[in-house]
Amino acid sequence: MYEKTNEIKVLRDPIHGYIHVEDQVIWDCINAREFQRLHRIHQLGGDFQVYHTAEHSRFSHSLGVYEIARRMIYEVKSLNEALDEDEKIQVMCAALLHDLGHGPFSHFFESITHVSHETMTQRLILDPGTEIHQALVKAKKDLPQKVASIIAHTHPRLLLTQIISSQLDADRMDFLLRDAYETGTSYGTFDLERVLRTLRVCEDKLCVKESGVHSIEDYIMARYHMYWQVYLHPDAKSYELLIHMFFKRYMNIHTQIRPIPIFECLCQSELSTEDFLLMDEYRMMVGFQEALRSKDPLLKDFASRILDRHLFDWIEDPTEEQESEVKERIQQRNLDLNYYFYEETSRYQAYLPYQEREEGQMIWILTSKKELLPLSQCSEIVKALLKMPNKTKKRIYFAKEIGR
Amino acid sequence: MYEKTNEIKVLRDPIHGYIHVEDQVIWDCINAREFQRLHRIHQLGGDFQVYHTAEHSRFSHSLGVYEIARRMIYEVKSLNEALDEDEKIQVMCAALLHDLGHGPFSHFFESITHVSHETMTQRLILDPGTEIHQALVKAKKDLPQKVASIIAHTHPRLLLTQIISSQLDADRMDFLLRDAYETGTSYGTFDLERVLRTLRVCEDKLCVKESGVHSIEDYIMARYHMYWQVYLHPDAKSYELLIHMFFKRYMNIHTQIRPIPIFECLCQSELSTEDFLLMDEYRMMVGFQEALRSKDPLLKDFASRILDRHLFDWIEDPTEEQESEVKERIQQRNLDLNYYFYEETSRYQAYLPYQEREEGQMIWILTSKKELLPLSQCSEIVKALLKMPNKTKKRIYFAKEIGR
Amino acid sequence: MYEKTNEIKVLRDPIHGYIHVEDQVIWDCINAREFQRLHRIHQLGGDFQVYHTAEHSRFSHSLGVYEIARRMIYEVKSLNEALDEDEKIQVMCAALLHDLGHGPFSHFFESITHVSHETMTQRLILDPGTEIHQALVKAKKDLPQKVASIIAHTHPRLLLTQIISSQLDADRMDFLLRDAYETGTSYGTFDLERVLRTLRVCEDKLCVKESGVHSIEDYIMARYHMYWQVYLHPDAKSYELLIHMFFKRYMNIHTQIRPIPIFECLCQSELSTEDFLLMDEYRMMVGFQEALRSKDPLLKDFASRILDRHLFDWIEDPTEEQESEVKERIQQRNLDLNYYFYEETSRYQAYLPYQEREEGQMIWILTSKKELLPLSQCSEIVKALLKMPNKTKKRIYFAKEIGR
Amino acid sequence: MYEKTNEIKVLRDPIHGYIHVEDQVIWDCINAREFQRLHRIHQLGGDFQVYHTAEHSRFSHSLGVYEIARRMIYEVKSLNEALDEDEKIQVMCAALLHDLGHGPFSHFFESITHVSHETMTQRLILDPGTEIHQALVKAKKDLPQKVASIIAHTHPRLLLTQIISSQLDADRMDFLLRDAYETGTSYGTFDLERVLRTLRVCEDKLCVKESGVHSIEDYIMARYHMYWQVYLHPDAKSYELLIHMFFKRYMNIHTQIRPIPIFECLCQSELSTEDFLLMDEYRMMVGFQEALRSKDPLLKDFASRILDRHLFDWIEDPTEEQESEVKERIQQRNLDLNYYFYEETSRYQAYLPYQEREEGQMIWILTSKKELLPLSQCSEIVKALLKMPNKTKKRIYFAKEIGR
Repeated sequence: MYEKTNEIKVLRDPIHGYIHVEDQVIWDCINAREFQRLHRIHQLGGDFQVYHTAEHSRFSHSLGVYEIARRMIYEVKSLNEALDEDEKIQVMCAALLHDLGHGPFSHFFESITHVSHETMTQRLILDPGTEIHQALVKAKKDLPQKVASIIAHTHPRLLLTQIISSQLDADRMDFLLRDAYETGTSYGTFDLERVLRTLRVCEDKLCVKESGVHSIEDYIMARYHMYWQVYLHPDAKSYELLIHMFFKRYMNIHTQIRPIPIFECLCQSELSTEDFLLMDEYRMMVGFQEALRSKDPLLKDFASRILDRHLFDWIEDPTEEQESEVKERIQQRNLDLNYYFYEETSRYQAYLPYQEREEGQMIWILTSKKELLPLSQCSEIVKALLKMPNKTKKRIYFAKEIGR
Repeated sequence: MYEKTNEIKVLRDPIHGYIHVEDQVIWDCINAREFQRLHRIHQLGGDFQVYHTAEHSRFSHSLGVYEIARRMIYEVKSLNEALDEDEKIQVMCAALLHDLGHGPFSHFFESITHVSHETMTQRLILDPGTEIHQALVKAKKDLPQKVASIIAHTHPRLLLTQIISSQLDADRMDFLLRDAYETGTSYGTFDLERVLRTLRVCEDKLCVKESGVHSIEDYIMARYHMYWQVYLHPDAKSYELLIHMFFKRYMNIHTQIRPIPIFECLCQSELSTEDFLLMDEYRMMVGFQEALRSKDPLLKDFASRILDRHLFDWIEDPTEEQESEVKERIQQRNLDLNYYFYEETSRYQAYLPYQEREEGQMIWILTSKKELLPLSQCSEIVKALLKMPNKTKKRIYFAKEIGR
Repeated sequence: MYEKTNEIKVLRDPIHGYIHVEDQVIWDCINAREFQRLHRIHQLGGDFQVYHTAEHSRFSHSLGVYEIARRMIYEVKSLNEALDEDEKIQVMCAALLHDLGHGPFSHFFESITHVSHETMTQRLILDPGTEIHQALVKAKKDLPQKVASIIAHTHPRLLLTQIISSQLDADRMDFLLRDAYETGTSYGTFDLERVLRTLRVCEDKLCVKESGVHSIEDYIMARYHMYWQVYLHPDAKSYELLIHMFFKRYMNIHTQIRPIPIFECLCQSELSTEDFLLMDEYRMMVGFQEALRSKDPLLKDFASRILDRHLFDWIEDPTEEQESEVKERIQQRNLDLNYYFYEETSRYQAYLPYQEREEGQMIWILTSKKELLPLSQCSEIVKALLKMPNKTKKRIYFAKEIGR
Repeated sequence: MYEKTNEIKVLRDPIHGYIHVEDQVIWDCINAREFQRLHRIHQLGGDFQVYHTAEHSRFSHSLGVYEIARRMIYEVKSLNEALDEDEKIQVMCAALLHDLGHGPFSHFFESITHVSHETMTQRLILDPGTEIHQALVKAKKDLPQKVASIIAHTHPRLLLTQIISSQLDADRMDFLLRDAYETGTSYGTFDLERVLRTLRVCEDKLCVKESGVHSIEDYIMARYHMYWQVYLHPDAKSYELLIHMFFKRYMNIHTQIRPIPIFECLCQSELSTEDFLLMDEYRMMVGFQEALRSKDPLLKDFASRILDRHLFDWIEDPTEEQESEVKERIQQRNLDLNYYFYEETSRYQAYLPYQEREEGQMIWILTSKKELLPLSQCSEIVKALLKMPNKTKKRIYFAKEIGR
């Protein structure tokens, strides 16, 4: 039996009203230093540079994912019955901890360390030195390994992974609602209560009753809008590009200049756990502050752009003339094209809000005749969405001061 | 004439829908580095340790205060008519910039530097080296001085100060709504639309039509609740106490140990503007990260408590026995009472949500007979509130690990 | 054992998300004709003449009161344990049915029939001819009598009555939230989740944990504001006055004119149950439509005023001159002062949002020392409120066309 | 010049905050008896039988349409400049009055009177005997004719009609938001502020800036969901079917029985304006109350079903066996198949949330290259939607008591 907290702990939350905790292991994980660190990683990276209120952290989001997973487990009757006590604890822990391995400005950071945040999450959970590991082990000996396997998608019971990582999981549900709330856009809202009410387990798969198809369509449209209006906003990309360019430069010349101590660990072949845990967005920013005093004009310039929000400008689907004109003007200003110009090609389809590629990931509908069908067979809207043509979009970014 | 932006700029905001900017000077101030820095100062200091979503910054709040001031100026007809173009620009700038001089963990920081944030705000505005100063001067030569005088309460026209600093000002209105939204509590909400609709100018004072008294009562109760439920929450105070104790220790021994570079500027008699501008909450946290490697066990301990949220415990109105027992247990653990015990006395009345001490600060009601009366004469609730007895509340804080 | 519905029924509701029903007796009561009739009685009588969206009915409110009572019973642990199965069903039925005996324009109707709505509610529940009675009896033989006794405040267990009729009951909680939502004012909102979380049972009394005092203060202030801004709005009173005057006239002359069939039952010494059940606000309005063809000019005039919203004007605390001038002008127009003028005196204190007169009604606080204290001893705000002086307010109403 | 009200009138509204009125003609129209009557016609007909809080009337909705039209006119700069004073007044009046001609249970009523509500609206506006006509004429002599022509789609300036009756008009925008709010579903919400901000006039057509396409997609999905979840809900149809069957019976036998006075006017070849204005949903319900005493058992039965919500049951896409079994059981019960069974076929495509059939109705996008394109060419989602296959859906309804 798992230890309970002495009373139900509740944490006020604007999305869920309250986060409810009654298992000691969950409480211990929340209080572990690796989890507290998530307060210092923005949920949306540089998006607060576009939506000025998007300043929320992965800490809040992680609590929210846990809360949705907890409600699924206890409020969806067939799920509650399908899982035993061990599995419930495992999946709630996995929900809470699924973002533990995120570094600062997540995708950028992965590109430097060559370690995905999922892998890092598993490492932290399995590392006997972390407080998280100790909290899990205290509850049950094999808990770290079980939780890590849910995150690694290797847990024998696929259902557990589905709850926290599939096309309709606690993770996406929380971030859509939370990001919509924090940015002040209405795009991400969908009817969580109704989705929860129509979830079922059938053939050991999480699925949705046919009467819930409209809520699911709404949820998928929420994702669609959040992708294009928030997550892929060119100004947010522009901000991340500044960070990318700073480190492109730093990696090129750090052996030739006085190094910036905060960033030195990023130049090593592998990042130690201790260094990873220290490296949050607060520390990155202080690194950029230090770079303001660098003798290298490019480092100095990019640091100042990052700290003071001097974003690159961008042109969507530029004509050839536009592009060459931009390049010319950059060179006239004696700016290095390698740093002050960037071309990005994104495939539209990579950001489809729903796909039906993998069985374990897709959304299953339980029809009134008790069949299990892929969502696209029950929704004309979704079917139409899946048939959207594959388009390619090009965008060029460049230093704003060259004008347009 | 003041320059307009080429089109109306709008910034999405969950509290106000949009922040509207059409004056170039406002846009330039927003883009100045001293203003961008406010993204790195939490609006509520350590309150995110209690309300985990209270992670919003003074940047968002400052935009909100500007937006409310802008709406007052353009939507309250008698105010619009009372102010000329210069005054409108002055007061909108003052609204936007009123928090510019906040350091990290505001009140704590003032106690170290002995400079109030209002004074620092004026300094930054008047310092020809700041981008803010340059943005203001570009619009009109005397603008920095005028804006600073509104913040200093020395502007000849009291009405301007009233808009951003009185018992019913754009500052309080924004932070109540915003802090309520971000914490997810409902206490701080009041009917902003109705308040705006009932504002008037009479005898060159900002006042409220009698029919708006109920909205004002609601606003005052919102303040009352936010004080006690959010701003004065003992756990938030406990967090700030950890920071206080860290620096109490640091100041005592920094000459004897290897100093932490980030904090050295705080030990000088005066902080340079450049050092002030660097010193945000991100930098403070990295300072605490550095202190984890300190040889002094107390610095190390407090740094870790701050980073990992090991708050002090507290007892409200303790009996003498409770207090001495706590002290005894601290000493049994070989902990230093000077650092691991703290006694706080707060006078209840200091936190009254409304007071009628100064003419320029209080809320005036314009009766249907066109008289101007203090709010307390038009509201039984407020009158009752002002008569609340002066009580003193004592609280002791101590290291949690000693148990209770 | 009470029969369950074959699945949990849920009814979408903007205030509570969903209304949950799983007891067959509740479902049967909802589908009884006496309950369905509540769709034809406005929750706020004539308030939709002031707040145009306040068109909601006692049907929705009754479901809401049931939902809050249900949540109290199942979510407040000590209450759940304090009640047995019978008592739970009794109190949920009483919550659902507490407004069953409301006639059209409630207070007005009571003044004509001289039967309070509470008495009428009991009659309907105890009358073997009603579908409600039959639904209750089907579940358990003594259920009608038990439910009626809760409503009559004669149930031996006071705790049950407290849940639906006290200063902190499911009734008030639902109507504050619902009326605020439907009028579009923010005054009535308070933190229902927090109130529910801090409710306890102690000494067989419903009480509130000390940490919930702030939420209770907020709830009381919500009542205070809703009284003055919505429930006692002079225009709503003015509308009810028109109905009052219509019937004053009708009673005086109905024997001398061709009677209006719909209203004849109101002239009898006692109203039959069948006539009462027919008499809803829809029927009243059609009665007024019929009166448009009356030969009596006053009936005709008042009917038209009611249907087409020609409200009386009003003056607050009029001077003697104002009052006599108004009267004079009415007479100059050859209007009958008995019908076209009305003077109202209301005692401020009658509408205090909270009182501590009866033990069974007041709000009890459970202190951290496990004492049970009246709310006023734990809240400075409430104490101040109770001491508010007793003032008398006078208002005169008169036909608008005489001008001012 | 049009007369202004002596001060700006504001009406609290949960959807728009306030409805603002400053033109005397608007105020006079609101106070006309034909407009006040709209309080007695539900916005959603029988939908309150499904969503119990959907009790709002066409009165509130009409105010909302007016408010959106008013904001379009004054907040969309290019629209403000495109219209002269006369046209502004005309379109605001048309927005306010567009639903004036709705009878009780709108579509049902049209099927009895064979007069569309649009035609009836025009009649009321043009009839010199109505207060509405008088209010319009008082403002300007040709105003009734102009307003009627906007509603008739015959006004020479198509732009005016587009504002209140097209695929993106003030009417749809208000009802989506309002119906979502009142039912408590989240489906109907979309970002009104953003839509308003991206509206433009180009080539004398209302259009949307390309950057607003996502908001428009969101708006169209809101319509899609509201259709299927609310407007076409089978239980709401079932309720309207009861009314349909009542009158099918009444028309068949009213010459053979004692007529129900309230319904007699519906049997005449043409309804007088006076009779139309009396005939609201309140009056209908009283007619059904009277029918409870009818000697015809079918009228009595249907009246009771309508008043007490005994809806017909229904089966979606029934098999042939299901259908014949249902019919058999109806006959076994000695129920008349002509009244107790109903088969409905609806074409899916008739309820597409967006179509591009008529130039004047469709949504135009103004691209960054200043071209005007149909929405479907700018939105993959909408293009997919328009290609959805045309499906037919069959549903049978029948008396619930025969079981399933």
